Amino acid sequence: MNTAETERVERETGRVEAFSDGVFAIAMTLLVLDLKLPHVDNSHNLFAALLSQWPTFIAFLNSFVTVLIIWMNHHNLFSQYIVKTNNVFMLMNGLLLLTVTVIPFPTSLVAEYYGTPNAIAAAALYSGTFLLMAIAFNMIWYYASNSHRLLKKTVTREQIESIKRQYYLGPSAYSVAFVLSFINVPASLIIIVALMIFYGVTASMSRG
Amino acid sequence: MNTAETERVERETGRVEAFSDGVFAIAMTLLVLDLKLPHVDNSHNLFAALLSQWPTFIAFLNSFVTVLIIWMNHHNLFSQYIVKTNNVFMLMNGLLLLTVTVIPFPTSLVAEYYGTPNAIAAAALYSGTFLLMAIAFNMIWYYASNSHRLLKKTVTREQIESIKRQYYLGPSAYSVAFVLSFINVPASLIIIVALMIFYGVTASMSRG
Amino acid sequence: MNTAETERVERETGRVEAFSDGVFAIAMTLLVLDLKLPHVDNSHNLFAALLSQWPTFIAFLNSFVTVLIIWMNHHNLFSQYIVKTNNVFMLMNGLLLLTVTVIPFPTSLVAEYYGTPNAIAAAALYSGTFLLMAIAFNMIWYYASNSHRLLKKTVTREQIESIKRQYYLGPSAYSVAFVLSFINVPASLIIIVALMIFYGVTASMSRG
Amino acid sequence: MNTAETERVERETGRVEAFSDGVFAIAMTLLVLDLKLPHVDNSHNLFAALLSQWPTFIAFLNSFVTVLIIWMNHHNLFSQYIVKTNNVFMLMNGLLLLTVTVIPFPTSLVAEYYGTPNAIAAAALYSGTFLLMAIAFNMIWYYASNSHRLLKKTVTREQIESIKRQYYLGPSAYSVAFVLSFINVPASLIIIVALMIFYGVTASMSRG
Repeated sequence: MNTAETERVERETGRVEAFSDGVFAIAMTLLVLDLKLPHVDNSHNLFAALLSQWPTFIAFLNSFVTVLIIWMNHHNLFSQYIVKTNNVFMLMNGLLLLTVTVIPFPTSLVAEYYGTPNAIAAAALYSGTFLLMAIAFNMIWYYASNSHRLLKKTVTREQIESIKRQYYLGPSAYSVAFVLSFINVPASLIIIVALMIFYGVTASMSRG
Repeated sequence: MNTAETERVERETGRVEAFSDGVFAIAMTLLVLDLKLPHVDNSHNLFAALLSQWPTFIAFLNSFVTVLIIWMNHHNLFSQYIVKTNNVFMLMNGLLLLTVTVIPFPTSLVAEYYGTPNAIAAAALYSGTFLLMAIAFNMIWYYASNSHRLLKKTVTREQIESIKRQYYLGPSAYSVAFVLSFINVPASLIIIVALMIFYGVTASMSRG
Repeated sequence: MNTAETERVERETGRVEAFSDGVFAIAMTLLVLDLKLPHVDNSHNLFAALLSQWPTFIAFLNSFVTVLIIWMNHHNLFSQYIVKTNNVFMLMNGLLLLTVTVIPFPTSLVAEYYGTPNAIAAAALYSGTFLLMAIAFNMIWYYASNSHRLLKKTVTREQIESIKRQYYLGPSAYSVAFVLSFINVPASLIIIVALMIFYGVTASMSRG
Repeated sequence: MNTAETERVERETGRVEAFSDGVFAIAMTLLVLDLKLPHVDNSHNLFAALLSQWPTFIAFLNSFVTVLIIWMNHHNLFSQYIVKTNNVFMLMNGLLLLTVTVIPFPTSLVAEYYGTPNAIAAAALYSGTFLLMAIAFNMIWYYASNSHRLLKKTVTREQIESIKRQYYLGPSAYSVAFVLSFINVPASLIIIVALMIFYGVTASMSRG
């Protein structure tokens, strides 16, 4: 591929990537607004007040790292496979970004209601949002790879299928977490955190 | 066009696009701050509290998708037609960005006042903001395309006129929604949501 | 200049521009958070409540457009004159960005205290922030242009002096606004708004 | 290196830089949200109320400038040394970005609790966050430079060691500030501010 062609192609997906990067970066940074300043008077201990907010910090960390990994996967898809874009793809990508921007909301629900009877609704929304995010991510890959629609010519059938198999785990595991949220809230959240750790570790081990 | 020329041109509009992308991405992400955490005690149901916030979620979704589609159109104009920029154009683009950044404000007004006597003012501001956004978008295209001011040389008269006709719908439909907001608030909002769906569907069907 | 050189140069200032664009875009978008949702009950009129917030809207509009014009000038400096960067320049640029990110704070002070005895402090901080912004902008140009330090080779002595003269207005006019804020708050704010309009009009008329 | 190669390399780290820039820019801009609007009635003086918030302004300034300098260092590493990326590196970079996005939280803790018995916890969290940030920064350089993993071929052993020595100061000094926060809060904060000034001055003097 000569320089001029490389550039035309880069120009086509470049702004979709830049725009998506912006949304990912902002959504991750806005998560800090979920960390609420504890108000304690002089006779109370701020360390204790901060420690009692541990569900907030776990939820914050989990959301941050999960969105980071989704961004890394998004980045890898574009840097290695996807070179074209169209309006349908941009709408699907927009759906993914919608789930990403929404994350701070269920994150703060979990932080607020963990340990109360209303934790079920919070955990259901939290796992449900990650489920939608994983579905949107699979849709993007299905649409881009179907009949080689938006891919580089050199991508092989085997690569496409391998990525598909790898991505199937997300919707399945988040479905389990979603159903579990109505039965056992801690178990549901443990699955979500475990999945985040699993994705982080496999990403570290892949050549990427 | 040789490589060096492509680059000079890219440099000229590149930063306007990057800056606009930033504003679009942030405005869309800030919309999540309109989703207020419901405060319910243990004897009340969080699911019910969230469901009762449905106007908030509809307003959020509609604002998010409408800004996403405006961004897609903005992106398509630059990737296919506009290759130059100047200060007047940047000011007009700034006016469009102003309406985009303001969106979270009327969105939260609608969310807060839907179903109350004050819904009229909220719906008027909401439809009025979209009306201004559509007008700014038409101004941008009119200015850029007039006497081929900022366009690629290869853009035809027919393409210019076709885009113009396509964009006229926005100001007309949002004007109707604006007037209707004083007579029938739900009808006004239905038009705005219908227009968002219509734009999404037509964008999906165009080759873009 | 051949392609490879163009690229090396672009790389050098490219990330400073991208980073600055990010800060400008976010600061402008965060201004919307200064627009406070009025809380009125059913017996009160939301239109009236919004109208009574007019100082908020004027302050918002003025801050938005002023930062937009600063961004346009920043963009023009980089696209036409500045091609190199160094650490001192990045720190000075950081100082400019500091004044830009701070803008939402004095903007909301003016919105909150206009018409009260404390309007003096609010107007002093508002004009003072614009004064610092204008000084930082002049410092950037002085440092970059001094002995042709960071400029393209083709920039002439006349161009440098002409830009310097043009930029001198800002610190002078904002100094007057700052001093006036202690004597006559409306007069101080009128100067700031007039300056914003003046800059917008002259930017529109320049070839840029 | 020919043009096509330069571009492939740029593409590889380009999006990591753009994404990181986004997070840096947003985190710095969100700091302004820590500046709380003082609410005073007409019989009280707004100037006095603002002056009494001085710890807030110091904490804001220190956090802004420290993140700015971290960004400058990040920028210099990529523009001069690092040309490749992989998943492990992106996770480590994500850890650095995590500490950057968190900064507004301990900043507002210090602003809120300075001068109260709970200042110890606030200062410990503030210095602890900078300590983690410095550790993450060292990890990034260690990983990228180890066996020349992600560096340009032309980087020398001497350059690598010189940068390493330069970066060691951060974790050491912030460790001292962290330990001191339990003994003497003002001393701890003075070290953090002094370090920010030291970094700013050395950055200004280096050729960068």
